[in-house]
Amino acid sequence: MKLLSFSEGRRESWGAVIGDAVLDLGKALPHYPTLADFIASDDFARRNEIVGAGRPGPGLSDIKFLPIIPRPEKIVCAVRNYLDHHNEAVAFGMKRELTGYPPIFLRVWRSQVGHDEPIIRPKVSDNLDWEGELAVVIGKAGRHISQSDAWAHVAGYSIYNDVSVRDWQRHAQQIASGKNFVGTGPFGPWLVTPDEIGDPTKLKIETRVNGTVMQVSDTSMLIFPIPRLIEYCSTIFDLVPGDVIATGTPAGVGFTRKPPIFLKPDDVVEVEVEKIGVLRNRVVDE
Amino acid sequence: MKLLSFSEGRRESWGAVIGDAVLDLGKALPHYPTLADFIASDDFARRNEIVGAGRPGPGLSDIKFLPIIPRPEKIVCAVRNYLDHHNEAVAFGMKRELTGYPPIFLRVWRSQVGHDEPIIRPKVSDNLDWEGELAVVIGKAGRHISQSDAWAHVAGYSIYNDVSVRDWQRHAQQIASGKNFVGTGPFGPWLVTPDEIGDPTKLKIETRVNGTVMQVSDTSMLIFPIPRLIEYCSTIFDLVPGDVIATGTPAGVGFTRKPPIFLKPDDVVEVEVEKIGVLRNRVVDE
Repeated sequence: MKLLSFSEGRRESWGAVIGDAVLDLGKALPHYPTLADFIASDDFARRNEIVGAGRPGPGLSDIKFLPIIPRPEKIVCAVRNYLDHHNEAVAFGMKRELTGYPPIFLRVWRSQVGHDEPIIRPKVSDNLDWEGELAVVIGKAGRHISQSDAWAHVAGYSIYNDVSVRDWQRHAQQIASGKNFVGTGPFGPWLVTPDEIGDPTKLKIETRVNGTVMQVSDTSMLIFPIPRLIEYCSTIFDLVPGDVIATGTPAGVGFTRKPPIFLKPDDVVEVEVEKIGVLRNRVVDE
Repeated sequence: MKLLSFSEGRRESWGAVIGDAVLDLGKALPHYPTLADFIASDDFARRNEIVGAGRPGPGLSDIKFLPIIPRPEKIVCAVRNYLDHHNEAVAFGMKRELTGYPPIFLRVWRSQVGHDEPIIRPKVSDNLDWEGELAVVIGKAGRHISQSDAWAHVAGYSIYNDVSVRDWQRHAQQIASGKNFVGTGPFGPWLVTPDEIGDPTKLKIETRVNGTVMQVSDTSMLIFPIPRLIEYCSTIFDLVPGDVIATGTPAGVGFTRKPPIFLKPDDVVEVEVEKIGVLRNRVVDE
């Protein structure tokens, strides 16, 4: 099942994707104002029955896509979690860093944008770069989740573009500055539940800029696989429904190229993940 | 004026401190369910009139203190923002990092605890360390706030103890892991409005562990002063009412001592900031 958050006019809602149409579940189930509320509920397990009884409403072309979870409590991003990306960063001169622990940083929800909404190149920088990633959305709350229990805490999978402002990212060792600009967190187009994904450790991932393939890999290349990321994060804090883990990006980002390639207005970035779909965003200037 | 968030039984509320009592403004003004909602409103400017008309309720000893803003949208923490702390970290062997830009990282609200509530030493570490800090609470939303406008965006000041799990902090260059454990973000006891603070750039700050002074400095020693922190953060994203900026800690933390000193169960940590008060928390094991 594909689930999404969207707006129609000024109303925000969420629903299921049925072919080219949207079943407006925010309207049908008003006691769940957001997709995260539904994911957190017992009804999430009954989703096939609920959706089977519904009647699709607006077409996908009539809605505005919102970030899958518009306001996650936490967005945890894995740093350099593909070996080929790690190696290109080291070759560029960045400090080597490979330990037994997944490096993570946090993103604020205010940086997020939906599918088909603009990525914003900030006034203060022309160092805008892409990072296509598989995103995991947490469904069941937990602390100290073991790797063997981890899959049971996943509500589904989506796509994140962890767009980075490289010069601001390098202001300091802490990269939060360059990873949190408004309009730099595309997240969508929808969440796909685990039953439709099959094995999430073997999904092709590809990032294209204006149609040119820039990143291509698959999720079997993750240094720290999804259960390890869930175990590690949940040692620190409770994971809760709607929390997002962006699992890291493969090689092929712009800043390590010679010469570097950065995103400019009107560029179109597409991140495609097998069995999920394509997250597409056009770049505009702030 | 001193404002705080608290719970009484199972009800969460917020209010003003009048002597040793609390004026329950969450009850008197139910259209502002949280202190952040009040701070965001036009009534915040009328706070003297509103509080003057109220009748104090429970005593300070009858309530449970909550973090001043229990669920801020963002908690931005400045890294090594006192030169003496920067120097002790460098002497310890940490990489030198002083540029024209304030290094920042993010904390999740779930890590916060109120005054008098326990700091939790996690099962996975005995490297628990204190960091007393002046906290700034944002009152007026804004993006691209200039340094000269910055003070107008401040609702008030409080105290943060940016308790850190040092070995986890050093898992990677990104320190988020060691800065986000549940029960490691004491924030309180109250917010003091700017009119009572006078000049926030000249406040004594002192951290004590079991009565022994560990950190002593004053806020004139900040490398990046408050207006610069506000300008920098608001270049990245909108600051909104209730956002918190923890301004960094002076020298005297535990891990750089020889031998290092870490917090253990039953230790009492007090952070005192002039004109604000004392934030006191006892350490317990998870």
